[in-house]
Amino acid sequence: MPKLLLDKEKCLRNIEKMARKAERNSLSFRPHCKTHQSAEIANWFRDFDIDSITVSSFHMARYFAEAGWKDILVAFPFQPGELESLIGLSELCQISILMDSPAALPFLHHIPKQIGFYIDIDTGYGRTGVKTGNPELIEQIIVKATSNPKLEFRGFYCHAGHSYKAQSQKEGDKIHHQALRDLGGLKKLFELYSPKVLYGDTPSCSRQEDFGEIDEITPGNFVFYDLIQHSLGACTMEEIAVAMECPVAGRYPAGERIVIHGGAVHFSKESLNLDGGAIFGQLVRRTGQVWSMLEETKYLTSISQEHGVMEHCGDLVRKVNIGDKLLFLPVHSCLTANLTRGYQTLDGKEITTLG
Amino acid sequence: MPKLLLDKEKCLRNIEKMARKAERNSLSFRPHCKTHQSAEIANWFRDFDIDSITVSSFHMARYFAEAGWKDILVAFPFQPGELESLIGLSELCQISILMDSPAALPFLHHIPKQIGFYIDIDTGYGRTGVKTGNPELIEQIIVKATSNPKLEFRGFYCHAGHSYKAQSQKEGDKIHHQALRDLGGLKKLFELYSPKVLYGDTPSCSRQEDFGEIDEITPGNFVFYDLIQHSLGACTMEEIAVAMECPVAGRYPAGERIVIHGGAVHFSKESLNLDGGAIFGQLVRRTGQVWSMLEETKYLTSISQEHGVMEHCGDLVRKVNIGDKLLFLPVHSCLTANLTRGYQTLDGKEITTLG
Repeated sequence: MPKLLLDKEKCLRNIEKMARKAERNSLSFRPHCKTHQSAEIANWFRDFDIDSITVSSFHMARYFAEAGWKDILVAFPFQPGELESLIGLSELCQISILMDSPAALPFLHHIPKQIGFYIDIDTGYGRTGVKTGNPELIEQIIVKATSNPKLEFRGFYCHAGHSYKAQSQKEGDKIHHQALRDLGGLKKLFELYSPKVLYGDTPSCSRQEDFGEIDEITPGNFVFYDLIQHSLGACTMEEIAVAMECPVAGRYPAGERIVIHGGAVHFSKESLNLDGGAIFGQLVRRTGQVWSMLEETKYLTSISQEHGVMEHCGDLVRKVNIGDKLLFLPVHSCLTANLTRGYQTLDGKEITTLG
Repeated sequence: MPKLLLDKEKCLRNIEKMARKAERNSLSFRPHCKTHQSAEIANWFRDFDIDSITVSSFHMARYFAEAGWKDILVAFPFQPGELESLIGLSELCQISILMDSPAALPFLHHIPKQIGFYIDIDTGYGRTGVKTGNPELIEQIIVKATSNPKLEFRGFYCHAGHSYKAQSQKEGDKIHHQALRDLGGLKKLFELYSPKVLYGDTPSCSRQEDFGEIDEITPGNFVFYDLIQHSLGACTMEEIAVAMECPVAGRYPAGERIVIHGGAVHFSKESLNLDGGAIFGQLVRRTGQVWSMLEETKYLTSISQEHGVMEHCGDLVRKVNIGDKLLFLPVHSCLTANLTRGYQTLDGKEITTLG
């Protein structure tokens, strides 16, 4: 079976680096747990005095609340189907939700406990959120919501996810600075309510040093990083902290092709366009309790449900045997970790995740 | 939470249709269970006297063996890391494996029970398998393997997966007929060993009526079908038997955009190029205990981890409310079902899968 290996040292360094950056910039740090989905890994943040986290679903919030986290933001627009989960969670911890319209408010009339909410802001990503040019809607949400004494307005939340589509680091910088201006403007406009501003996609939090009026950062992926983050300049290849260990299932010297056990149900179908084609993972070499880059890059060039295929292997096809274990850095570690549901550290310890 | 709904009637009709086609063509039928991964759904095949199945991993084989299946083919090249699983399974049921080289044979020297094996044949897909033009290698595998009395050569297995890349039905036909010729040739060449020929990608098994010298078909996806199969002409839209129920999380009339709770961790990142862009699911309308097609097709146009986005919604954006449940046919039902790990039938019954 393919196994997702975790280089704990790299992971701890990624956590420390981001925690220090937050500290240096006087930012609170509320790491997003959707990447690792593991109570054990979340605990590693406690060494940096982190006591609040971000998650992407109520299901995940429940898991971390039961693991002892007392301040959890569900960074997904609240919808009424989650009311029962919300009420249950509000008994366990201080829970905050996102809103970008007054539509869900009527469903929150009878919540028994205090709930915090943030207004989701769209600075150009175009997914969810109130557009920054629409302060009337923001005002309307705040006024309507706070007529319910159980609902406390905490501030603004922004995931500038269009940073993932940036064609260059310069474009990424532009997206970041636009977000800073927009969020700074809103903070000033609504200063009467003393809003906190939460922000934090991994590319921006990793690459930028100026955080303007931001109060708290919420990145998630940085805990592991991956090939997409590397392509965006958010990390070095050496900072990627997870790699999939896959047994060789077939070798085809005539076609310079190796087939591994490791497919879409392990890596996900996320691909990255590199060197003129879609790739699904990049080969690294394991030596003892570390892995390292190869001189000549080699990619997983296609995957199906259980199979991964490396075309253009060159000489490697003659060097491997069936059953040998090859290691691949994933394209998108969040989706990969969500599929494998568990890690093995390089010294052989199993780390569990949300079931 | 998004939920994968199963129209049991459609699913049973898909099963019956394939079983009848096998019967009509005097073919054995060994359905692949990697799509549904559910012991309950596998049991639905028993009404058609099916007593043998195909799976794609030893992990899956173990699950179905424990559910009472006595004849299981693991249709993935055997590699030595699975030896222990293989031995354990051989105590529970009649297990067969795939091979495409003699490389794994030394590891099978000391197996305690009789194991069947099929030689994986590549008729042009270019993933695993011995190329049909290499009968010397086939002979070599048979001779070496059968020097071990515990290894019984059963025949040839072929997954002509290049049928999924066919640009037209005509091209799909060509791939199928090439496979029939190649496999028929091998069957004759090795008739001394009385090989059975197993074959069966869903597009070919669904669309074709001539199966030449094939003895047994092994399709899997047909149990649910999906948008990829529809695009290949393997099914009608009405035969697709699963749809993801997703709550509306946000509506943005100015952008004619709806955002749902339903993302890459539910649908997978598999996409299909339709109407000039990548799509991740197609909207259908639920009425009571059925769903039906819309007059105007609407697609999920992008997905991230938990979010699905429908751009170009037109008027629909003004008709839905937050929390409303929308239904989407998946692009690739195997990967979708692997992520949701469970179904709800249209009358509300839960169906479990491999954990």
